[in-house]
Amino acid sequence: MIRNDVLLYEGKAKKLFKTDDPKVLRVEYLDQATALNGGRKDIVEGKASLNNQITSLIFKQIKQNGIQNHFIRKISKHEQLVEMLEIIPLEVVIRNVSAGSFANRLAILEGKILDYPVLEFYYKDDHLDDPLINDDHVKIMNIATEQEITFIKHEAHRINKVLIELFSEVGIRLIDFKIEFGRRADGTIILADEITPDTCRLWDDKTKDHLDKDVYRRKLGDMIPVYQEVLIRLEKVFN
Amino acid sequence: MIRNDVLLYEGKAKKLFKTDDPKVLRVEYLDQATALNGGRKDIVEGKASLNNQITSLIFKQIKQNGIQNHFIRKISKHEQLVEMLEIIPLEVVIRNVSAGSFANRLAILEGKILDYPVLEFYYKDDHLDDPLINDDHVKIMNIATEQEITFIKHEAHRINKVLIELFSEVGIRLIDFKIEFGRRADGTIILADEITPDTCRLWDDKTKDHLDKDVYRRKLGDMIPVYQEVLIRLEKVFN
Ligand SMILES: Nc1ncnc2c1ncn2[C@@H]1O[C@H](COP(=O)(O)OP(=O)(O)OP(=O)(O)O)[C@@H](O)[C@H]1O
Ligand SMILES: Nc1ncnc2c1ncn2[C@@H]1O[C@H](COP(=O)(O)OP(=O)(O)OP(=O)(O)O)[C@@H](O)[C@H]1O
Ligand SMILES: [Mg+2]
Ligand SMILES: [Mg+2]
Repeated sequence: MIRNDVLLYEGKAKKLFKTDDPKVLRVEYLDQATALNGGRKDIVEGKASLNNQITSLIFKQIKQNGIQNHFIRKISKHEQLVEMLEIIPLEVVIRNVSAGSFANRLAILEGKILDYPVLEFYYKDDHLDDPLINDDHVKIMNIATEQEITFIKHEAHRINKVLIELFSEVGIRLIDFKIEFGRRADGTIILADEITPDTCRLWDDKTKDHLDKDVYRRKLGDMIPVYQEVLIRLEKVFN
Repeated sequence: MIRNDVLLYEGKAKKLFKTDDPKVLRVEYLDQATALNGGRKDIVEGKASLNNQITSLIFKQIKQNGIQNHFIRKISKHEQLVEMLEIIPLEVVIRNVSAGSFANRLAILEGKILDYPVLEFYYKDDHLDDPLINDDHVKIMNIATEQEITFIKHEAHRINKVLIELFSEVGIRLIDFKIEFGRRADGTIILADEITPDTCRLWDDKTKDHLDKDVYRRKLGDMIPVYQEVLIRLEKVFN
């Protein structure tokens, strides 16, 4: 089958294509890993398919738990259809346990369980290196209104609860994760992008092993067996 | 007169001494300028006296406008007495116009008037280089409670209004400033530290000349005539 879909955008982890339906995008996951805002880049065969399967499973699952999102359906090993949205240029991060940049920035030991989830906004702008920003910055830059900020925060905390539960059922502790939201034409805001080991920190409940992109960032080993392990565990419980 | 007050703390701009009264500190301003978190340091003769006079005048003036603060009285050219407080380790910044790190961090042109004042919290920790933090960070690190954050923000915005008015009366535009707050034994929070050209960005209303520490940071010229200009203007109207 030959497809002539117009490439809308090529990101670091996926390509977006238009489809016949103006409200629907085709997302093609890529066999590629990056770190340091693209400064390090590698081909990782099999990653596209794993991430596409993992995020598809998760988005389907959390929808059943009342979390509206852009996912329509998986159409091939490495492709899915999603609702086309106007992405809000925020990386919304929730942290349950100290790790990574948070641990370094605030000198809070990696692994320390936080008394309650901490939410952070990063301004999605590669040229500025995705800086941490606060609510006033979000408003002054017209990224989102006060009401939208309130909704996004509330929704992110709801998503955190659902994800903690989902991963705990497969022996994984959700340390932190990054999500993105988008606006529909009618102004409603829903969860978009992806939820994968690229965008979450996932530690094995017992061994504390990293089951996420930190194996790539920190050069701890191969990504594929690790991402495979996450998918296999999720499929056992949720498929 | 020989004084044997115990040195409590030596900062980059002033020394704190105990006095006979456990609730009162003597603050000695220093003839010293620093930039880059102490990375650059110079002796600047006359600066101590100018900053002591400027902050004394401002703290007295804003108290008359209903802003509680630590200032008791000036006791010499370069010394003042203040209420001893437990300083909250936050640099509370309010910005009316884009400048400095804000302009660079968010790519908002220096000089752009902001639609409304933007408030920022920086965690006062030299080892961590005073990182920008959000409200969740303030709470999770037990720096301040939700209620205290609300009070501090509200008070900072009130102080901004009073300072804008005060400086505008002497032909100066208040671009941004940094303040610190401290807790009394009874838990009430009041304005502390200093308000000087070291801690504010002040632009001449007409010429847009820098009347603040940026002349030192950016090596634009001598600090002393500039700080003198600020003092002279303030004294003409407020003394
Ligand atoms: N439903 C959607 N509608 C429109 N765009 C989306 C949707 N879901 C995700 N996107 C966008 O798809 C783009 C490509 O994803 P990818 O993860 O490859 O980008 P990235 O390289 O991580 O980030 P960047 O956006 O900085 O390029 C992202 O910009 C993301 O915001
Ligand atoms: N009323 C007060 N009671 C107690 N401490 C105060 C009071 N007002 C100011 N301080 C503290 O005095 C210290 C010395 O001031 P200075 O400006 O020299 O410090 P600095 O070098 O800028 O900052 P740092 O606190 O990082 O040393 C600061 O830590 C400040 O928080
Ligand atoms: Mg991405
Ligand atoms: Mg200081």
